[in-house]
Amino acid sequence: MANMKLVLVLMMTTIVAVCARDPELTTDFAVPVGMSASMITGDFFTFTGLRNFSAVPNTFSSKKVTQVEFPALTGLGVGVTLLEYKPNTLNPPHTHPRGSELIYILAGHLDVGLIDSANKLYSAHLHEGDLFVFPQDLVHFQINMSKEKSVLAISAFGSSNAGTISLPRNIFGSGIEDEVLLQAFKITSAELMKLKAPFMPTM
Amino acid sequence: MANMKLVLVLMMTTIVAVCARDPELTTDFAVPVGMSASMITGDFFTFTGLRNFSAVPNTFSSKKVTQVEFPALTGLGVGVTLLEYKPNTLNPPHTHPRGSELIYILAGHLDVGLIDSANKLYSAHLHEGDLFVFPQDLVHFQINMSKEKSVLAISAFGSSNAGTISLPRNIFGSGIEDEVLLQAFKITSAELMKLKAPFMPTM
Amino acid sequence: MANMKLVLVLMMTTIVAVCARDPELTTDFAVPVGMSASMITGDFFTFTGLRNFSAVPNTFSSKKVTQVEFPALTGLGVGVTLLEYKPNTLNPPHTHPRGSELIYILAGHLDVGLIDSANKLYSAHLHEGDLFVFPQDLVHFQINMSKEKSVLAISAFGSSNAGTISLPRNIFGSGIEDEVLLQAFKITSAELMKLKAPFMPTM
Amino acid sequence: MANMKLVLVLMMTTIVAVCARDPELTTDFAVPVGMSASMITGDFFTFTGLRNFSAVPNTFSSKKVTQVEFPALTGLGVGVTLLEYKPNTLNPPHTHPRGSELIYILAGHLDVGLIDSANKLYSAHLHEGDLFVFPQDLVHFQINMSKEKSVLAISAFGSSNAGTISLPRNIFGSGIEDEVLLQAFKITSAELMKLKAPFMPTM
Amino acid sequence: MANMKLVLVLMMTTIVAVCARDPELTTDFAVPVGMSASMITGDFFTFTGLRNFSAVPNTFSSKKVTQVEFPALTGLGVGVTLLEYKPNTLNPPHTHPRGSELIYILAGHLDVGLIDSANKLYSAHLHEGDLFVFPQDLVHFQINMSKEKSVLAISAFGSSNAGTISLPRNIFGSGIEDEVLLQAFKITSAELMKLKAPFMPTM
Amino acid sequence: MANMKLVLVLMMTTIVAVCARDPELTTDFAVPVGMSASMITGDFFTFTGLRNFSAVPNTFSSKKVTQVEFPALTGLGVGVTLLEYKPNTLNPPHTHPRGSELIYILAGHLDVGLIDSANKLYSAHLHEGDLFVFPQDLVHFQINMSKEKSVLAISAFGSSNAGTISLPRNIFGSGIEDEVLLQAFKITSAELMKLKAPFMPTM
Repeated sequence: MANMKLVLVLMMTTIVAVCARDPELTTDFAVPVGMSASMITGDFFTFTGLRNFSAVPNTFSSKKVTQVEFPALTGLGVGVTLLEYKPNTLNPPHTHPRGSELIYILAGHLDVGLIDSANKLYSAHLHEGDLFVFPQDLVHFQINMSKEKSVLAISAFGSSNAGTISLPRNIFGSGIEDEVLLQAFKITSAELMKLKAPFMPTM
Repeated sequence: MANMKLVLVLMMTTIVAVCARDPELTTDFAVPVGMSASMITGDFFTFTGLRNFSAVPNTFSSKKVTQVEFPALTGLGVGVTLLEYKPNTLNPPHTHPRGSELIYILAGHLDVGLIDSANKLYSAHLHEGDLFVFPQDLVHFQINMSKEKSVLAISAFGSSNAGTISLPRNIFGSGIEDEVLLQAFKITSAELMKLKAPFMPTM
Repeated sequence: MANMKLVLVLMMTTIVAVCARDPELTTDFAVPVGMSASMITGDFFTFTGLRNFSAVPNTFSSKKVTQVEFPALTGLGVGVTLLEYKPNTLNPPHTHPRGSELIYILAGHLDVGLIDSANKLYSAHLHEGDLFVFPQDLVHFQINMSKEKSVLAISAFGSSNAGTISLPRNIFGSGIEDEVLLQAFKITSAELMKLKAPFMPTM
Repeated sequence: MANMKLVLVLMMTTIVAVCARDPELTTDFAVPVGMSASMITGDFFTFTGLRNFSAVPNTFSSKKVTQVEFPALTGLGVGVTLLEYKPNTLNPPHTHPRGSELIYILAGHLDVGLIDSANKLYSAHLHEGDLFVFPQDLVHFQINMSKEKSVLAISAFGSSNAGTISLPRNIFGSGIEDEVLLQAFKITSAELMKLKAPFMPTM
Repeated sequence: MANMKLVLVLMMTTIVAVCARDPELTTDFAVPVGMSASMITGDFFTFTGLRNFSAVPNTFSSKKVTQVEFPALTGLGVGVTLLEYKPNTLNPPHTHPRGSELIYILAGHLDVGLIDSANKLYSAHLHEGDLFVFPQDLVHFQINMSKEKSVLAISAFGSSNAGTISLPRNIFGSGIEDEVLLQAFKITSAELMKLKAPFMPTM
Repeated sequence: MANMKLVLVLMMTTIVAVCARDPELTTDFAVPVGMSASMITGDFFTFTGLRNFSAVPNTFSSKKVTQVEFPALTGLGVGVTLLEYKPNTLNPPHTHPRGSELIYILAGHLDVGLIDSANKLYSAHLHEGDLFVFPQDLVHFQINMSKEKSVLAISAFGSSNAGTISLPRNIFGSGIEDEVLLQAFKITSAELMKLKAPFMPTM
């Protein structure tokens, strides 16, 4: 019986992994493994985990809602992230490998940037109520230039699990051989050590 | 002029199928016809049309942002709608034919309902900060039961043009033959006339 | 061992649900869980359940063939429904959430209607041998206006499980709160009670 | 004329990929180029070209309905073909490159065969009212073994343009160099000449 | 416990089969059933099985690399095949049901042919360094006309499991009833026996 | 000229979304606008531009073959790139936004690395004949550690236009505001100036 549970857990982790990016379902919605359709109520479609979103002081905070946190999203091709930028904070350059992002400014002014594959930068200074779209996989960032006011925003994603690749950490905190980074960025070993320092996992 | 016809014929043969529901692009993003990539700046990715959203008194109001209003969304598979429910107002039963909807409550309390294809109702009473997902094509509605407070919400869609079919008007305001509606709803002609009255186009 | 069977059954129900709308397969066809490819013969690809289709008198009858009734359809993106309309009967307004329908009239004359998302009605009077296409998710209906002759038809779907949402019952027979329906249809409580009566589940 | 070239170049850059296999639309349906939505009536969704289907004596006849014959199918992912097999006739081995086929027997008895990519044959003897599914791209054939009775059938396709590759003619009637066919089929030049004779285009 | 392994093996075979053609994943890559993400190293993404490719003398040899041989390809939509054509050998007419093929000539000169669904032949004489693309599902072949030199090539496929249907064997070696083949190719029983001989499974 | 505008407007309305990532075609292949099917010969499917690939000394060189260079690839979902790594050279960290890459080592030994979205590095030392797969959108690099021998490789992509985002240049050569980069990499202005120097466009 213990083994049986293991099988179900393994299946849950893996079947989802094998399946498609927000495939359209052959049923109205995806009933999770181990649950029968009759057990599903309105609660299944409700997510309350953003109620108590409390941003960390002096930093950029975000809370993702994907099919991992909210299984009802499975196969429905949509997700959101709630974001708070304390004064003078940055969401550093990153990409979303599985979905475009459409950010909506709830409060404050936000500066955003997007770089296409031809290395062209597109910038905007957003006001409360504005939208900006970051196409799938393009490098982008957001920065709150205000010294006093926080920015609050919510982003819609066209995927139930868009993913995030945070570039500074992905490049300088993942243990890539120094030789690669020295050549890639044309820097000295001393400079590289300084670049890696903030992103190295602590032990 | 003869050449012009040739162009149209060529286009007809080749473009044929118009295009896909939020196809992933073969370029970073879709440059509109008649515009060159070099003309595109950060403004292209910015939408300011929600800044001045002013809900109509005593009713439910919404403002869609799709690839029609915001061409940068083309092919990116994401869109949003801003919604305001004045006290005691309803977004009547409807479906979205081309995308699931994930609603986020910005202010107030909202009652929502979703009916699956087996005619089972799923309901929830949402608080500020809550999310609820309406799977693509299922009938759903939202109602503000408060007699005093408005509800403000924003919905994410996994499509740049999800579409809306408002069922009362689609059924009773589209001119379907009386014979069909009488049989479908098992009502009398007098009852049908009353049902159709609010949805008939005025002349 | 009993548990083992349970696991297989659960998997069968759920994996299919998690997977995509008629994904193209990575194999020639989908071998059901618990079956090995070597056990498959021509019978697997054959469905005989429509041979004994017997329409109910004085009503509209239909028999769907989806991946549920005919597992070989899984992942192949095609399905059919056989339909018989006795004299003076109606297939009431409904939608198919996961596929377009192409109806072919085998016998009789059928009146059909289709309403787009702009609430425009498209009607046709079909003869034996005619086709009519109902695009995915749009509301549509068929009615046999003849007082004497039945209509027989077969519909092709571009999905192995197109689904059906029957609108009168979905709206008036699913237990939606009266307050919602009163506002949505702008009717009185007495009128609503009459509208709901034919669709309420009997106990 | 200079402008004309500009138009063509613009089109070439932008349309690029021609379109997808039955992409789901971003509109309710595809309005053909050169037609405005307001011009569309119920006739657009109706196809009457199968009414006068007249099979040729002593042979197998078929009439395809794809987006070419019936433009309303564009982007809707469904199509049909009407088929008549006179006594003792064959629909020779062929494949459909862009859709699975689900055949429904309207009259008579039909023998069918399907070969998977491991060269395994699946056969069935179908009765009136039976269905058989031929998965996309697999080689298959149908034969009417009756010496007296015709077979009438209609096939549903999960594509608005499934395509057909008729293998005897594709291989022996397309002008492939003799050297290739001699080696492929391990035959003599005389045998090849006989094999090619029925399929060579006449001049 | 023995049964448990059976379940896992069954799942592995079948889940993959039910899933889509190279669906885009909802995770970075597909972790195989029974493996945890933490067990995955660079080896998982490496395939060394082509190192010792040794072509058979006097014949055409190939080695496919699909998600079956190289599970890391699962869901990634790409695969390759290594091909060697000894002097005067042929890769007979065949189709790939689930992906287009882009061949690159590593050494030698190769003659190739492609036949579209209108039975039109497209031929080319390729040099070292050349590419030729065979669109998905179209019949094609390659032949080394040189009497002395081998040809080495590698083909890229836009699928992790493109599949191959070898037409001579699929048609003449799968046990299709003689009656079908006699009519399809308009030959005598004696001629058919000769055609079938090289492809019949030996016992 | 008035008509010309009409054409552009028509196109704008109808083509809308530009096209999908390697949509499967509704025809055998995509005939370019301005070309008729009858003009197409074997040359259309042949690409000879890699014959004269000449790598630049002392650097990493590559030549992409996408639908831009080779229009026959349009809609076929496959492409290749030829790569040469001179001794001690690097293909710096980058991503491909629209396709996975499967690299095949033609000559030499290549060290490769791949970083997933959890910032885990996967490395391998590849020999001639080895394959390594880089899943779509994940950061990866290749380095030739040999001081004497070049490496030659060819990469297959599951897209006809996979795209490349070269991260050092995308981040440090696109003009992102210093404030963003200072915070993102936690460096000083002097350090940033050095990092940007090699990637700034020269004037």
